[in-house]
Amino acid sequence: MPQIKVPATSANLGPGYDTLGLAVSLYNKFKVKKRDDQQLKTKIIDKKENKLIKIDNSDNLVVLAYQKYFGFIDQDLKGAEIIEEMHTPLARGLGSSSSAIIGGLAAAAVISGTLISEKDFIQLAVALEKHPDNVVPALTGGLTINFYCNNNYDYYKIDVDQNLDFILVVPDFELKTEKLRQVLPQKIDYPSAIFNLGRISLLTAAFINKEYQLLKTAMEDQLHQPFRKKLIKGFDQVLKTAYDSGAYGVALSGAGPTILACTGENSEIIAENMKTVFESNSINTDVYKVKACNQSLYQVLKEEIS
Amino acid sequence: MPQIKVPATSANLGPGYDTLGLAVSLYNKFKVKKRDDQQLKTKIIDKKENKLIKIDNSDNLVVLAYQKYFGFIDQDLKGAEIIEEMHTPLARGLGSSSSAIIGGLAAAAVISGTLISEKDFIQLAVALEKHPDNVVPALTGGLTINFYCNNNYDYYKIDVDQNLDFILVVPDFELKTEKLRQVLPQKIDYPSAIFNLGRISLLTAAFINKEYQLLKTAMEDQLHQPFRKKLIKGFDQVLKTAYDSGAYGVALSGAGPTILACTGENSEIIAENMKTVFESNSINTDVYKVKACNQSLYQVLKEEIS
Repeated sequence: MPQIKVPATSANLGPGYDTLGLAVSLYNKFKVKKRDDQQLKTKIIDKKENKLIKIDNSDNLVVLAYQKYFGFIDQDLKGAEIIEEMHTPLARGLGSSSSAIIGGLAAAAVISGTLISEKDFIQLAVALEKHPDNVVPALTGGLTINFYCNNNYDYYKIDVDQNLDFILVVPDFELKTEKLRQVLPQKIDYPSAIFNLGRISLLTAAFINKEYQLLKTAMEDQLHQPFRKKLIKGFDQVLKTAYDSGAYGVALSGAGPTILACTGENSEIIAENMKTVFESNSINTDVYKVKACNQSLYQVLKEEIS
Repeated sequence: MPQIKVPATSANLGPGYDTLGLAVSLYNKFKVKKRDDQQLKTKIIDKKENKLIKIDNSDNLVVLAYQKYFGFIDQDLKGAEIIEEMHTPLARGLGSSSSAIIGGLAAAAVISGTLISEKDFIQLAVALEKHPDNVVPALTGGLTINFYCNNNYDYYKIDVDQNLDFILVVPDFELKTEKLRQVLPQKIDYPSAIFNLGRISLLTAAFINKEYQLLKTAMEDQLHQPFRKKLIKGFDQVLKTAYDSGAYGVALSGAGPTILACTGENSEIIAENMKTVFESNSINTDVYKVKACNQSLYQVLKEEIS
């Protein structure tokens, strides 16, 4: 296996707080090589800045995941050299830590030559990440409905139309998920819950039946976006501009600050207009035009390892 | 138009509190005849007991809806004789009041010869019923996702597989919706909302993609069923029996006390076993085996009136 490709992911998609996650065609790549000793050496290279990121092993999710995997299969840890080429922006709401976790677990699978079941793979990943909606689509691809059932995380995968574009507008400041959870209220009223129930059901129908004109309503949310958008200057204006320019659906990616737009034909114009609004609010952005990633990394591992 | 047929409906379907409603092939039938004066005479015949039900005009939802419709189209009220043959059990969680509302509005459309837009029809009906998840499927047929958007109620309709059976087990006691709303808590915690978000998304996928093995998980609920089931003796036992006998999905219909089971081949056995559990709890039941009703009454009216 020359390299492991883990897609970036957009969690909390629209009304799908802690539930829906989408894998996109922007990948962190992990090169894995066996070592003869039991040492684990990792290098993380930020491809955008083209610089080496130094992370202590004890803080490094790739290393933690790798060790956890060996613990689970009850084998002595095998040494390895893991080089991560990071293309997914860090702490922007695109699942960079989930990518590290899935990368570390996948590297351990390759080096150990032992692939655990997909179910176990998911439980290990969620144990490290706490929430399923980034790690699951990072492993399985597609748009996943994530849910907890019989003491396990489970998912349902929807393959997403490759005619759709997804615009990721990534502001140049970080928002840490832990902090972002604190801005949410303790409890929700019934009307807000009902609001999201209708939207997530509609969004599910929209993606399965390819009825994208539904997405403007279906991407609305009352469970986290109204609280978190206050931390992103110009948020409402960016959304309005995206819709005015023809986007199907627009929402916060993960806990932000990235904004994701699902678009049809005029993606470049939509992206440009969204960027311009951020700039008028003195925020620089990187813009990515991606597709949904429907390929399952787990299937790739299965073919390689078995 | 010889008669208007309004389907019974199962609202709050599974995790779809105030959101999902299903029309089924059990109908209240309204015979409508013009009168030369401006008087409105209604008769309601309970077909099960074969007796006439006396309702004062001021309490009669058929009459209220009929009057409301004429108010909306700004015409003088035209007299009519409306005979309702009631097949849907009253106050059991099968949308009997929604049926009366839709029947009254439809009768007014027929007698006035003026059919308002479907959108307006829905707003009128919801104004009388307060919640959309019975009146909408009663008008449109199918499994509907109901949501409030831009100051209007809107819906998305899923046509339901005619190979599926729906078992309605109807206990012989009434539960009034108003009272049932009082047993719900004021607010919900995030985990419960997230629980239902995953389930309703899964349920939507299950019905669209005809993957009924998902329904056991997808029909679960944490927003109303746990509170209301306490009012129905033997509820958990009936559910377990239905699943043990091979049902795909089981849930409270509306606010209860009816329990709905979605089933495949062995519907009779499942129905019998559910009935037996209720009996062992000293509750008599009526059992109906129905299909989803995908036909739209609004479309029927459109063909008749235009």
